[in-house]
Amino acid sequence: MKLGILGGGQLAKMLVLAAHSLGIRTVCFSPDPNPCIRDITRLVSASFSDEKALREFCNEVDCVTFETENIPLTCAELIAEKVPFYPATKALKMTQDRLLEKSFLNTLGIKTARFAAIKTQDELHDTFISWNKPAILKTRRLGYDGKGQYALHQLSDLTKAWERLQSCDLILEQFVPFQEELSLIAVRSQRAEIQFYPLIRNHHDHGILQWSEAPLENNLLQQKAQTIAKKIMDSLEYVGIMTIEFFHQNGNLIVNEIAPRVHNSGHLTIEGAITSQFENHLRAIFSLPIGNTELISNCLLVNCLGKMFPIHSCLKMPGVHYHDYGKNSYPNRKVGHITLVDRDLERYQKSKLRLIKIQKKANNFL
Amino acid sequence: MKLGILGGGQLAKMLVLAAHSLGIRTVCFSPDPNPCIRDITRLVSASFSDEKALREFCNEVDCVTFETENIPLTCAELIAEKVPFYPATKALKMTQDRLLEKSFLNTLGIKTARFAAIKTQDELHDTFISWNKPAILKTRRLGYDGKGQYALHQLSDLTKAWERLQSCDLILEQFVPFQEELSLIAVRSQRAEIQFYPLIRNHHDHGILQWSEAPLENNLLQQKAQTIAKKIMDSLEYVGIMTIEFFHQNGNLIVNEIAPRVHNSGHLTIEGAITSQFENHLRAIFSLPIGNTELISNCLLVNCLGKMFPIHSCLKMPGVHYHDYGKNSYPNRKVGHITLVDRDLERYQKSKLRLIKIQKKANNFL
Repeated sequence: MKLGILGGGQLAKMLVLAAHSLGIRTVCFSPDPNPCIRDITRLVSASFSDEKALREFCNEVDCVTFETENIPLTCAELIAEKVPFYPATKALKMTQDRLLEKSFLNTLGIKTARFAAIKTQDELHDTFISWNKPAILKTRRLGYDGKGQYALHQLSDLTKAWERLQSCDLILEQFVPFQEELSLIAVRSQRAEIQFYPLIRNHHDHGILQWSEAPLENNLLQQKAQTIAKKIMDSLEYVGIMTIEFFHQNGNLIVNEIAPRVHNSGHLTIEGAITSQFENHLRAIFSLPIGNTELISNCLLVNCLGKMFPIHSCLKMPGVHYHDYGKNSYPNRKVGHITLVDRDLERYQKSKLRLIKIQKKANNFL
Repeated sequence: MKLGILGGGQLAKMLVLAAHSLGIRTVCFSPDPNPCIRDITRLVSASFSDEKALREFCNEVDCVTFETENIPLTCAELIAEKVPFYPATKALKMTQDRLLEKSFLNTLGIKTARFAAIKTQDELHDTFISWNKPAILKTRRLGYDGKGQYALHQLSDLTKAWERLQSCDLILEQFVPFQEELSLIAVRSQRAEIQFYPLIRNHHDHGILQWSEAPLENNLLQQKAQTIAKKIMDSLEYVGIMTIEFFHQNGNLIVNEIAPRVHNSGHLTIEGAITSQFENHLRAIFSLPIGNTELISNCLLVNCLGKMFPIHSCLKMPGVHYHDYGKNSYPNRKVGHITLVDRDLERYQKSKLRLIKIQKKANNFL
């Protein structure tokens, strides 16, 4: 079995590591000449618009997946004509565009933030006035980690936001008050079997995921989230791992966005779950039985932003694992992550505080 | 950080996978032109006696380790002059030769089988007669999986054994009656800190490890084994993972042999322990804090000998992980392994029986 992966970043790296254990060979296709996966698998260095390179890539593999939704749809469609491609292009298409995604969710009866397509500055002005609520102006495509977004609190914010973002297709989303952000990672097989990981609580700062923790241990919320995920996945006949990000307020869940792939918050499943999100993604797309998604204990994931944390300080805490993606540093770039897995709750809480302190110090230093 | 590994088999593969997670780059040195690690790291294909290739290899790395004790001592010594080499050559030298190893253990006051060096057919005859007990004639070097051994029950067995093995240096070992074989995996840091994994019970057939199970949950035996391991490791100023195989009879432990490396029976620590034997070996040799060696539940390891087991039958059991080494098949070759990790004891027992049944069927088929 040989898997092709579009992209060569850390998510691709973790898929490759899981694949090697299972005996699945891999090749990555990446426009980046020096990606994370350079040392651990074969790399095709070419543009996503290079049709000849894409065709050769397809000839080499049994199945293709992707680590990012930011790949041209034409590239995905070309591949899907030649080899099995998971998750399918319709899921990719829908999640590439915030407007399509939110519209799709609403047609399923799933709650999202109030939203409107914005084409002109007048439309922006009129919509903001008529809602009379704080809102966020976003590009419909390609935003991540808070990029391509602009928060609007008062009328005077609109001009600057428009100047920054007007070159793109835009969407205005009403600000959703929430007490916490959660993510649900789910996996659906080719035989329509779905398994869910426990809900993960995510802590963002400046639009970037800082740390995540699981399990949430709230059965009611877990059930609500699972019902929503099942509806989405079944309606797309989805195969593989999907991540759904929620805003949680007083027991109500509103979908923030969908990632048709393995997810940063789910890195804690590598050491924290019986089967990691990466292995389960592979199992799903290769039509193998889905693995147990239970967590073995409290788990914490802390992102290393801009630079790695001091390795000794981290590893001397019991149950800490260190993941260095081998990326060049620049401010706020995700260059690695730390996982804490510890069944001793008191010790876990101490180590958690220590890791978050290390993160704060590293962030301030940048 | 860049690690050089001597050897390119499945143990090297699992070290490479653990290294990639930690952000440690790797290169393997192997005389085998088509080794397991061919797709996941850089490979230097050369003979262990190729001094030029070894020197270039040393220039490329920060530290060197090995996956097998069957490498020429001169090769290890050449490397150790140039770069840090763990475990040290004195441990390698001692474990390469059953006679040196048993003599060393006895000088530490550690019990082994009764043994004698055998140089001539007369010596073999006289020693066997004087012991008047079943014994095993073994090559002093290079045996594994029951190769290079001959069991002697009666005088008439001696001629054939001598014909088979006389070209090598030999050792005669008195047969040790035992109720079970156990292994203890221990890790010692550069600062002399030692951590132990729980004892593993090993089930052999025809001299080949079939399956292993942990934890043993016998505190007295665990303590006895740890005391022996500490004595051996401290006396060698050992750094890295060491595996000690014991015969257990009525609460007494006799050391069978020492492996100065990660071990087949310890594969269950990949998914079964908080920190795997592979990660802990890396932590020790790179002077990082040793990771927690606790097991998260009952764990079973089953070797795939000659051919892989049917993947669907295995993975449909909860908590099963499938490791395909990507090796060509031949009878009794270790081509992969299966791990079972399950906290539900009743389900664990059912899955265990099922996996052993699958193994028996696969072995019979060969």
